[in-house]
Amino acid sequence: MSVRVHPAAKRIYFFDEGNTSRDLLGGKGAGLAEMTAAGLPVPMGFTITTQACLQYYEDGKRLSESFQEQLREAIAELERRTGKRFNDPEAPLLVSVRSGARVSMPGMMDTILNIGLNDETVEGIARLTNNERFAWDAYRRLIAMFSTTVYGLDKDLFEEPLERRKDELGVKNDPEVDADSWRALVEEYKRIAAQHTADGFPQDVNEQVTRAIEAVFNSWHSKRAIDYRRYNRIPDDLGTAVNIVQMVFGNMGDDSGTGVAFTRDPNTGERVLFGEYLYNAQGEDVVAGIRTPVRISDLERTQPHIYRQFVEIAQRLEKHYRDVQDLEFTVERGKLYMLQTRNAKRSAEAAVRIALDLVNEGIIDRATAVGRVDARALDQLFHARIDPNERFAVAAKGLNASPGAAAGRVVFDADEAVAWAERGEEVVLVRVETTPDDVHGMIAARGVLTAKGGATSHAAVVARGMGKPCVAGCEALQIDRRNKRASLAGAEFGEGDWITIDGTTGNVAVGKLRLIPPPAKLPERLATLLEWADAQRRLEVWANADTPEDARKARDLGAQGIGLCRTEHMFMQRDRLPVVQEMILANTPEARATALTRLLPFQREDFVGILEAMAGLPVTIRLLDPPLHEFLPSLETLLVETTELRLTKGIDSPDYQLREAVLKRVQQMHEQNPMLGLRVCRLGILYPEIYETQVRAIFEAACDLVQRGIDARPEVMIPGVGSIREMQVTAANARRVAEEVLRERNCRLSYHVGTMIELPRACVIADELAGEAEFFSFGTNDLTQTTYGYSRDDAENSFIPRYLEQRILPDDPFQILDRKGVGALMQLAVEKGRSSRDDLKIGICGEHGGEPSSVAFCEHIGLNYVSCSPYRVPIARLAAAQAALGVLE
Amino acid sequence: MSVRVHPAAKRIYFFDEGNTSRDLLGGKGAGLAEMTAAGLPVPMGFTITTQACLQYYEDGKRLSESFQEQLREAIAELERRTGKRFNDPEAPLLVSVRSGARVSMPGMMDTILNIGLNDETVEGIARLTNNERFAWDAYRRLIAMFSTTVYGLDKDLFEEPLERRKDELGVKNDPEVDADSWRALVEEYKRIAAQHTADGFPQDVNEQVTRAIEAVFNSWHSKRAIDYRRYNRIPDDLGTAVNIVQMVFGNMGDDSGTGVAFTRDPNTGERVLFGEYLYNAQGEDVVAGIRTPVRISDLERTQPHIYRQFVEIAQRLEKHYRDVQDLEFTVERGKLYMLQTRNAKRSAEAAVRIALDLVNEGIIDRATAVGRVDARALDQLFHARIDPNERFAVAAKGLNASPGAAAGRVVFDADEAVAWAERGEEVVLVRVETTPDDVHGMIAARGVLTAKGGATSHAAVVARGMGKPCVAGCEALQIDRRNKRASLAGAEFGEGDWITIDGTTGNVAVGKLRLIPPPAKLPERLATLLEWADAQRRLEVWANADTPEDARKARDLGAQGIGLCRTEHMFMQRDRLPVVQEMILANTPEARATALTRLLPFQREDFVGILEAMAGLPVTIRLLDPPLHEFLPSLETLLVETTELRLTKGIDSPDYQLREAVLKRVQQMHEQNPMLGLRVCRLGILYPEIYETQVRAIFEAACDLVQRGIDARPEVMIPGVGSIREMQVTAANARRVAEEVLRERNCRLSYHVGTMIELPRACVIADELAGEAEFFSFGTNDLTQTTYGYSRDDAENSFIPRYLEQRILPDDPFQILDRKGVGALMQLAVEKGRSSRDDLKIGICGEHGGEPSSVAFCEHIGLNYVSCSPYRVPIARLAAAQAALGVLE
Repeated sequence: MSVRVHPAAKRIYFFDEGNTSRDLLGGKGAGLAEMTAAGLPVPMGFTITTQACLQYYEDGKRLSESFQEQLREAIAELERRTGKRFNDPEAPLLVSVRSGARVSMPGMMDTILNIGLNDETVEGIARLTNNERFAWDAYRRLIAMFSTTVYGLDKDLFEEPLERRKDELGVKNDPEVDADSWRALVEEYKRIAAQHTADGFPQDVNEQVTRAIEAVFNSWHSKRAIDYRRYNRIPDDLGTAVNIVQMVFGNMGDDSGTGVAFTRDPNTGERVLFGEYLYNAQGEDVVAGIRTPVRISDLERTQPHIYRQFVEIAQRLEKHYRDVQDLEFTVERGKLYMLQTRNAKRSAEAAVRIALDLVNEGIIDRATAVGRVDARALDQLFHARIDPNERFAVAAKGLNASPGAAAGRVVFDADEAVAWAERGEEVVLVRVETTPDDVHGMIAARGVLTAKGGATSHAAVVARGMGKPCVAGCEALQIDRRNKRASLAGAEFGEGDWITIDGTTGNVAVGKLRLIPPPAKLPERLATLLEWADAQRRLEVWANADTPEDARKARDLGAQGIGLCRTEHMFMQRDRLPVVQEMILANTPEARATALTRLLPFQREDFVGILEAMAGLPVTIRLLDPPLHEFLPSLETLLVETTELRLTKGIDSPDYQLREAVLKRVQQMHEQNPMLGLRVCRLGILYPEIYETQVRAIFEAACDLVQRGIDARPEVMIPGVGSIREMQVTAANARRVAEEVLRERNCRLSYHVGTMIELPRACVIADELAGEAEFFSFGTNDLTQTTYGYSRDDAENSFIPRYLEQRILPDDPFQILDRKGVGALMQLAVEKGRSSRDDLKIGICGEHGGEPSSVAFCEHIGLNYVSCSPYRVPIARLAAAQAALGVLE
Repeated sequence: MSVRVHPAAKRIYFFDEGNTSRDLLGGKGAGLAEMTAAGLPVPMGFTITTQACLQYYEDGKRLSESFQEQLREAIAELERRTGKRFNDPEAPLLVSVRSGARVSMPGMMDTILNIGLNDETVEGIARLTNNERFAWDAYRRLIAMFSTTVYGLDKDLFEEPLERRKDELGVKNDPEVDADSWRALVEEYKRIAAQHTADGFPQDVNEQVTRAIEAVFNSWHSKRAIDYRRYNRIPDDLGTAVNIVQMVFGNMGDDSGTGVAFTRDPNTGERVLFGEYLYNAQGEDVVAGIRTPVRISDLERTQPHIYRQFVEIAQRLEKHYRDVQDLEFTVERGKLYMLQTRNAKRSAEAAVRIALDLVNEGIIDRATAVGRVDARALDQLFHARIDPNERFAVAAKGLNASPGAAAGRVVFDADEAVAWAERGEEVVLVRVETTPDDVHGMIAARGVLTAKGGATSHAAVVARGMGKPCVAGCEALQIDRRNKRASLAGAEFGEGDWITIDGTTGNVAVGKLRLIPPPAKLPERLATLLEWADAQRRLEVWANADTPEDARKARDLGAQGIGLCRTEHMFMQRDRLPVVQEMILANTPEARATALTRLLPFQREDFVGILEAMAGLPVTIRLLDPPLHEFLPSLETLLVETTELRLTKGIDSPDYQLREAVLKRVQQMHEQNPMLGLRVCRLGILYPEIYETQVRAIFEAACDLVQRGIDARPEVMIPGVGSIREMQVTAANARRVAEEVLRERNCRLSYHVGTMIELPRACVIADELAGEAEFFSFGTNDLTQTTYGYSRDDAENSFIPRYLEQRILPDDPFQILDRKGVGALMQLAVEKGRSSRDDLKIGICGEHGGEPSSVAFCEHIGLNYVSCSPYRVPIARLAAAQAALGVLE
């Protein structure tokens, strides 16, 4: 939700002004204001609004005069309240500058502490605290933090002199460094800053603040922040707020310290205070992992009153926000200060448990609980995971580009991946980045790890399309292709060594970790949550399944029908393919009919299995869809083979002649653009015997079941209809054959004949089509292809990654339904279809049917059901409920 | 325009009832009624309406009771008026039954004469006329005509006995056959009819009439009539009327006779009475060509009063109808009877001349004249024609399936066609019918002749798509493929012999006839007519042209701009292709830029030529559009070549390695569905240097011209835009480069940047696109492909002919714009586009831009211009005027 910018509006709110708008103040600012209002111990300070950030960009990255005026006033007010002043060695005011957007985001500048120190005030602090070590330590921290975040200098520039100094002193930890050493380091840091930047570290505190604010604003448009927003579908026009908070110090002795805590365990959801505390340290030390923190419960032993106060505050905050809180706090000389409260990020498993517990504790109602779990995150639960009992070192972390875990032997080359996989090895393809030339290797691999590239890189887009785990942009990965070796933040490995990647978290480990396959049944707590979701949703959730096993799985996961049963997969099976090829290569309708007659029992058997698995529920069977040459040997292979036979065995050899005859036929059937060629219902019109055989198999199967007392509910779906006569002719044939079978078998059965809407023209003439079709099912994969004019096979492998990177497209339209284009055509089809048949049942069976935002769109335009792959059924159930509740747009 | 059927309405009108509705009475009936009203000599009779025909079909091909009642009453009334009666030997009533739809149509039953004769009434006629010979001749004619048209028996069944009889008598012409011979033939004819049909020839005259009426009705849905209607875009739901007319006899002696005449010459348009007359004959004799008729002016010598009366009537009718009339008449014993008047069919040349002359004679105004010439027919004038001075025998006539004339050596096989063509021979491909396997042969041939198949056969559809002459369904053609011989109604020829086909008329001649190429300039009369058309039209007419020659031709033919200049054709030229390939195979942007720099002068030179040819008029240049691999060697060829090199020269040979490297790159670029792949603006976004080079070439060319004082008006068109960012990025780049060049050259120039609308998504987001694009041009070829999901290359060659045959599609949507689907999306785009930019200029540059019905649609939805190939510019000018006048829907 975007905020309109008014140039001269109020841009700054003190924490105690009573404004708690997250849109305006960001998450952190709103939390500080709410805690202040609740009387909790919060340092003094104020928040610069998100509108100030938007104004900054509107003004061409300049802080406006009116804003600077407000800032001066706010600082003066803070000085009045604290009795301290910027640049005043007698009573220096120190602050932290903390970014805080509406949703917290990695990639944005986080925090600069100790702003207010300069060559003069540092002496004042030393005097006032009577702690020279502390003062110079704080100052060197400021210079380093300022230089890295505001100027973007490399951290190592500052780490190295410190490490050198510690070596000289023969000490290991920062607290052992003495005051003089810190003072000397400050001089060195200032030199480094001056050397690598135009202006050096600014002595004027007002300039420190201004520069820090600008750095926060700029970080809103950093590449990583943009990537993160794109991947998480966060709009770009929200802007970030900035908080200016009076410093409190956790590093003023053993009665001081700093901590982070969650009100419940964010991994499991268990109701225990979960957190870490570091004595005598500033916040950044916790994050930096320089010293090992203790469990927060340790405080109960050392500072029981602080611990009790904190526990009480944590509970109040959780109750106030009705959700698990993620807290930051500091203890300064025995006094507790709350620095942040926000809704905690949590694993999918924890999210489900917490939602259930909060309902059971009477804190939220079921509908709220349903809205609390990110439907996208459920996906994690249905991919392979690293066994939580595995103890392992994370060698490095990359971008969680495509979920699921994979373990395999390392290969550095796509051809090698194929070669190893053909020997029966499980491999993980490890590349600097992937290109279209690597796709065969990606297909052969269990997972993909790349050193470069973000969530929209080729590797990420293609892996997601394939449903394969991928960790992308793992910057610690160094590859030495020539020697087939690589290193991962120090860990060395070579071709054939095992690694394990976790595309859900981005973790990479060297070695072969135990993986847990996705559960076959719904975990109990999730089942309960989804029952609550079911009570909220209007949309039905069906599944796409081509086999009885998949149908059973789908039903177990809550599918209310089969929205798409593809019959071509049945044709592809090893024992049937020769018959299918015979059918295709037939020269006469009679020869074709003979081959089809042999296929009929196979098809019938398939349908018996699926209809039985779904007894009592509708099973939508799509008649043959792909171009026939998909069932024939590849033209390219045949060209090479016949050329070889011609040169080795000669033109008169039977081997050559046989192969050449097949080549001729395949060439005849070859199409420039098979996606737009002789396929879908066009097949059924040119070769009516194919569809008739399929319909016969469907109804013979249904009759078999009905006569065994099983409630079979077949629905016949005609693919790729673009003109009314196609619908009329194929539907009439289907109904005729169905009635014939029912008569022959003396069987009664209710069934429907409908169509896939997968061509723009079908959307435009949907009113006519609905006169014949008893249901519609949007085939959004094909509809996306034709609406955009993109071939998915070609596009995802070539220009879509580049388009996402260059922001030509906001999303891959094959992953996330394109509402503006494809969606508009769908909406037209819904309106037109229902205008001629009120009770027209309309669903979606493209892959979008299991993607939450797309499900929400389907709810908005009033579809009857979404259909998706079995493992996505839970996601769709939850998303449908959230869409109905209005919490998923 | 369809008529709603009311079961019990009035279905029969006498000629003198004053009703002259063509919709109700058909052309013939309305003409008879009008002539009757004008007091002209017309035999008595009545018309059965088209609604009776529709009712007949609605009732499942049954004549309703209510209709039969009306028919009985009408016959009784006719009997009263004539004083004669059916089945009455004393005063037998004889009638003709004549079909007459709103528009006259080959393929429908025409006429049965002499109905009313049976074994008894024939004697009465013989007595009453005192002419036994005449009576039995009339009777045998009836039986033959009735048997062939009502029962569908073969004409030869009746011709053979007659020929045999004439041989026996030793005579040549029918009038020499005596009464007894006719009487004997009648007996033989009755036997033949009885033998070949269930009921034989009916003696009951009422049954004769009823059967004849049914036969006329049935012929409305004969295959040929349907094909004709489809090809000529006549609706199927008009129905035909039937006329029952009292017989008059032209075969009652030398003072009798029958004739047909046109009020002007239908071939040239010259203002002379043009027609033929046959003494002592019935109408069918003229058509049958048994005896050679005389010129109509011969009557002036033999029966001057009849001639004068006829000339006066002819002039009155032409004046009355304000158009050239096609007249049928009979003289019975010195008395003239008019049997038909209708607007005459005429050649395109005649149509133009007549329209002009009628204006000059003050009979019609210019706007009417513009509406009088069939825009589609103008096409004839712009194809090669057989030299009118050639005297030749038409060996046979087939269907005029694709216009233009071609002469070539006969080949019976597609591969042969290619082989002969490669030797530099001109060939005509002669086949029983064509299939997709013949396409390469069709490409190699000058024209195509088939024995089977109608206007929607594979040969017809593909030839029209290629713009090649085709005569299809030439039933007289017999092919002996084994011996490479064929015969054409007796004329024999073999492979390599010359034939000439005329796809405009359907004529086929053995031998090599002189052809006249299409005129480079507009014929003078046509130029005048088109000037009048220009005064009526709102739509501008532009042309598609890729070369200066084409641009000049287009301008000469009246083009007001270039709507589509394809730049890829320039890339294909022999001297440039290697550089283009170098550009494509480049591994870096720099290498690509170097190759592009070498292409730039070529492109600039092309643009200079076209912009100069069109000085003062807009030239819309489309940036590169096709997938890059179109410029590379074919993958299939490379596969064969590398396999050959591998086996013959070995894997280490440089030849193999070189070829293999090219193969690798081509494989990398290979796409599953190139139509939906990396092409259009996607190229320009992934390889911006390509578009930038093109834009630079355009503006450097324009500046060169402007600085020479020539008014160059380039318009830059971005192809295949589907998302707003594509438009923004490519348009911004184009404008940037354009401004750069203008600055460098210090040149001022007005230009626009617009886009092709050729994807459904572009239509849906047209409002957004119009924010960036200064003009739209519908690329209806691609838009049709994506809206239907048809690849034109594949579809027209495989399922479209079958679809047309089976009437799944009313028309080939690549020939005639699909208004319901593609058109609806266009309309949406027009509305949305203009909603965000009022003055948005919108055109069409698909091949539909020169097809009259599609032009009319463009007028209806308010486009600014249509753009078509140069030779179609005159057609589009006329069609645009007719659409504006409302005479072309």
